[in-house]
Amino acid sequence: MEIGIIGLGKMGYNLALNIKDHHHRVVAYNRSPEKTKEGEAEGLIGAYSIEELVSKLGAPRIIWLMVPAGDPVDDMIEILIPLLDKEDIIIDGGNSNYKDTLRRYEMLKAKSLHFVDVGTSGGVEGARNGACMMIGAEQEVFERIELIIKDICLEKGYLHTGRNGSGHFVKMIHNGIEYGMLQAMGEGFEILEKSQFDLNYKELARVWNHGSVIRGWLMELMERAFEKDPQLETIKGIIHSSGEGLWTVQEALELQVPAPVITDSLFVRYRSQQQDTFTGKVIAALRNEFGGHHVEKK
Amino acid sequence: MEIGIIGLGKMGYNLALNIKDHHHRVVAYNRSPEKTKEGEAEGLIGAYSIEELVSKLGAPRIIWLMVPAGDPVDDMIEILIPLLDKEDIIIDGGNSNYKDTLRRYEMLKAKSLHFVDVGTSGGVEGARNGACMMIGAEQEVFERIELIIKDICLEKGYLHTGRNGSGHFVKMIHNGIEYGMLQAMGEGFEILEKSQFDLNYKELARVWNHGSVIRGWLMELMERAFEKDPQLETIKGIIHSSGEGLWTVQEALELQVPAPVITDSLFVRYRSQQQDTFTGKVIAALRNEFGGHHVEKK
Repeated sequence: MEIGIIGLGKMGYNLALNIKDHHHRVVAYNRSPEKTKEGEAEGLIGAYSIEELVSKLGAPRIIWLMVPAGDPVDDMIEILIPLLDKEDIIIDGGNSNYKDTLRRYEMLKAKSLHFVDVGTSGGVEGARNGACMMIGAEQEVFERIELIIKDICLEKGYLHTGRNGSGHFVKMIHNGIEYGMLQAMGEGFEILEKSQFDLNYKELARVWNHGSVIRGWLMELMERAFEKDPQLETIKGIIHSSGEGLWTVQEALELQVPAPVITDSLFVRYRSQQQDTFTGKVIAALRNEFGGHHVEKK
Repeated sequence: MEIGIIGLGKMGYNLALNIKDHHHRVVAYNRSPEKTKEGEAEGLIGAYSIEELVSKLGAPRIIWLMVPAGDPVDDMIEILIPLLDKEDIIIDGGNSNYKDTLRRYEMLKAKSLHFVDVGTSGGVEGARNGACMMIGAEQEVFERIELIIKDICLEKGYLHTGRNGSGHFVKMIHNGIEYGMLQAMGEGFEILEKSQFDLNYKELARVWNHGSVIRGWLMELMERAFEKDPQLETIKGIIHSSGEGLWTVQEALELQVPAPVITDSLFVRYRSQQQDTFTGKVIAALRNEFGGHHVEKK
């Protein structure tokens, strides 16, 4: 088969190489041409404009977007629309909000273009060597792309989750669960760190990965991180987020599902980015007012 | 080697068989004799009193307790003390509170008896076929039991975590992390269940187990549970707890470590056991008082 890939960031580049390794023809475009050149050296067919990418693919085309979620996806779709033919497929493989995905699907459907949402998990290693993918698509459209998906995923590592939007929706929930699991691990290790015992965290992560209830990939990564830095002394405990945790909490609010742990995990990330808090100032000021309790001055 | 096992519950019975399979001589006692008889049929050496168990072991002895945490451990230690000889080792393989463990260790040390705390993870399957163990013990005492531990654990599946108490402490934290991970998974699947999409949870758990970031044993068990009951229609969402989550939260409070997710996971379990709440009544009553908002009557 043949496919066009737009966006050769860490995920896109490794996915492109992964597809190419499975003997598909991969035409690749990236905004900055250096990465496209790098891809050419590895066997991708470079394109230096979207027009060139489209012209190098025979209809009906499959074009896989790996650009940042949000406006870049809309912008790229707008550029593609006049260049494509009926029955062409655009795949959005990024972490888009599923509501944007539903909107784009309807808009493209009205133009007789197909749209597929693919949620991808497994990190850069997965993208290169075998990913985990959740695909939202109409059945016949899914069947047209399944061979490529099958080639680049781990065995049993992909699922046609249902109609359009469901792939990104399910990926969002996956990330929400991940927020909670990470926070639980963080809290556990901080209690260990503050405790009276002198523990080897790397060895603990190792033993927990061999037969314990909480074994899994995140604990394996924990072992790797503690191996590099036994006390995590070289990094700060500041945690950023890229949207999917927030969307999971927004979804919980819309559906009125109590989700205290995923919500708290998100708030802990926000708190980690603050040096001081206005909440803290308010409470300290009030304790001083009503009880004369000590206030720490700037 | 030879060892005495006291308590043939699900965990104790399977550990005893596991030890026996590795060509150790296992003398086994259980309060109700039926289970001891069952063990004899499988190759364990039955004992029908603690005295008999002790007499069937040559000094210095190793006696492994697999009785419920709390008073049963103290009671059994009190029975054992007059029957044992100096240098004998008592192992507590249950989910004891590490503070009880430290107290028992000091008390037994004063009587020249050794005490070892073993936190065990991996469930009944692990106990039978290869467990994960965290061991708190003095170095020379650990070395006396290491061969048996090594035989019954998975490869790389045991760790001498440090001095006495550390094995149970670390197991407690393991369970605290487990509470948070379970809660995150629960919330994620409930949002999926309330969503506009028609999803196959078993297939989702399956795909998440093949290459995703949140893959691990708990997600494998999720797949198994959904395979048996695709919508979990046959069970209620009531969650009990056996102490280790509570102790983790108590430890976080003592050490002043913010642990919102593990704490919330525990509170969610308490809420799940309530049919109605007084909190809810208080809030409903006040909203009615200040705003005339509707109250649902009994």
